[in-house]
Amino acid sequence: MGEFDLIAHYFKRPARRSPLGVGDDCALLAPAAGMQLAVSSDMLVEGRHFLSTVDTARLGHKALAVNLSDLAACGAKPLAFTLALALPAVDEAWLAGFSRGMFALAEAHDCELVGGDTTRGPLNICITVFGEVPAGAALLRSGARPGDELWVSGTLGDARLALEVFRGTLDLPAELFAMARMRMEQPTPRVALGLALRGIASAAADVSDGLLGDLGHILRASGVGATVDADAATGCIDLLAHPVAASADLPLALLRTCALSGGDDYELVFTAPAAAHASVLQAGRDAQTRVRCIGRIDATPGLRIVDAQGAPLDQHFSSFDHFSA
Amino acid sequence: MGEFDLIAHYFKRPARRSPLGVGDDCALLAPAAGMQLAVSSDMLVEGRHFLSTVDTARLGHKALAVNLSDLAACGAKPLAFTLALALPAVDEAWLAGFSRGMFALAEAHDCELVGGDTTRGPLNICITVFGEVPAGAALLRSGARPGDELWVSGTLGDARLALEVFRGTLDLPAELFAMARMRMEQPTPRVALGLALRGIASAAADVSDGLLGDLGHILRASGVGATVDADAATGCIDLLAHPVAASADLPLALLRTCALSGGDDYELVFTAPAAAHASVLQAGRDAQTRVRCIGRIDATPGLRIVDAQGAPLDQHFSSFDHFSA
Repeated sequence: MGEFDLIAHYFKRPARRSPLGVGDDCALLAPAAGMQLAVSSDMLVEGRHFLSTVDTARLGHKALAVNLSDLAACGAKPLAFTLALALPAVDEAWLAGFSRGMFALAEAHDCELVGGDTTRGPLNICITVFGEVPAGAALLRSGARPGDELWVSGTLGDARLALEVFRGTLDLPAELFAMARMRMEQPTPRVALGLALRGIASAAADVSDGLLGDLGHILRASGVGATVDADAATGCIDLLAHPVAASADLPLALLRTCALSGGDDYELVFTAPAAAHASVLQAGRDAQTRVRCIGRIDATPGLRIVDAQGAPLDQHFSSFDHFSA
Repeated sequence: MGEFDLIAHYFKRPARRSPLGVGDDCALLAPAAGMQLAVSSDMLVEGRHFLSTVDTARLGHKALAVNLSDLAACGAKPLAFTLALALPAVDEAWLAGFSRGMFALAEAHDCELVGGDTTRGPLNICITVFGEVPAGAALLRSGARPGDELWVSGTLGDARLALEVFRGTLDLPAELFAMARMRMEQPTPRVALGLALRGIASAAADVSDGLLGDLGHILRASGVGATVDADAATGCIDLLAHPVAASADLPLALLRTCALSGGDDYELVFTAPAAAHASVLQAGRDAQTRVRCIGRIDATPGLRIVDAQGAPLDQHFSSFDHFSA
């Protein structure tokens, strides 16, 4: 099967909403009047962003999910995406699984594939996603103000715990590993929460490289500092809620590392004025997504990590960096 | 130097026109009222789309040029692009050259880098480009009609001749190789011509996989056939105009192959009603780009290749396909 047959078979679906989809030199998007277009690109490389053994449908899901997570962080509604794919060879089983997982998530978010590219090369998946947001309403990294509360959605650290098991540095009971692995391989982009937080959150970012690293982007962009309750963040680890977790006897330092700088969470870290506390909780209920207050924004620059009693932690955390990690 | 420093140093430029550029979870684009956004993605892989020995500034130019060529084929005005880059390691000399070549072309087209991604992995360059076109004015592949004239811009085949020299299957005098190599390594996207052809051309595509292959997309999308004058197409080879060319004694069959199915030309193949002949020539003059009529569109499906006297050629031509070539 040649390149063009491949594209047609696995990736060509009729455009429903865009004026022109797959099959011309360009796709055409028509944002509604008064709307801005939010754009984000993420590139996934085998061995770095996913293991070669991952289920291909889960990989298709994740490749799109990490991009939708960027739209969520801006409060943008997903519209469309392009897919550029380098494959070592034509592997129909791979393509069938990948496209199934990708389209299932795309359809759940009414986000259509409008174009892209396929070529031969070391496996590489590059998705560029487009969303719509009313002019001036996008959630930015730069809006955090001293006194704001610091929030995080969903679960933190589970993906990193799964990675440690794959790396052979950690043993987990089978039930916990299954939970953690799902978080690593099939993250849930918080699109509904991002939309619900428009007009409420003062700043937001998605947690892809680790909570502290991505919070750092907000702090630098906003010119502020923050105090983070490490115990509240560690309490976001999903598998700790499982009955088996107590007997697994996971070291606290490891749990804190996974929650605070684990990476691959695809949750939202965001800030909101303290007066909006109830509105944030309501946004979480509306979006059916757990939100937790894990700290506050300070006028003093820098990041202060404390325990539940407010005592400073001396543990060191490093955020994920694709060139130094 | 870490990932974020890298991005900041080589790729972060202030957004001039877009509401939000590099440095947030998403970039924001604000198309003008009544405008549609044309979008295209191209992925370039080392060893397939470029040689590992290529000058990095030329590679930066080419990576963006092949994307701008897609905008040109739609008659869209370049606005912005994202860059996703996988690099085996941080190589500052590489990044300095690549970004210099890329930004030089970007600035020439007033097209700004608004976001992207960098990661470690086998060298892979994925650019997604955005252009603006009035609603309904985009040049599509589907508009060719029987009786239309078939046109091509600029030069054909030179890039393929250079590739054959690199492959060791052809010797060229140094002056000719230098010309051909420039066409291969620094193609000129026909953006001005694409804009000038709005309202004149009935269909257009860019020639990236070879003239006949890309013309084939127009024919299928339009439900028509075509007759192509192979001698007129071969006459588009730029280096044949060089005084040294006559003594190089290049075989006619090779020249025809390079012109008709060479690939990597980044010219426009387009159709226009015969009554618009003078308007097409004027568009070429306005865009300072040579345009040549090389055939006509027929109601009968299929592709007929003839010589200057109209006699059918029995030479076989195959278009480029990344998985079967």
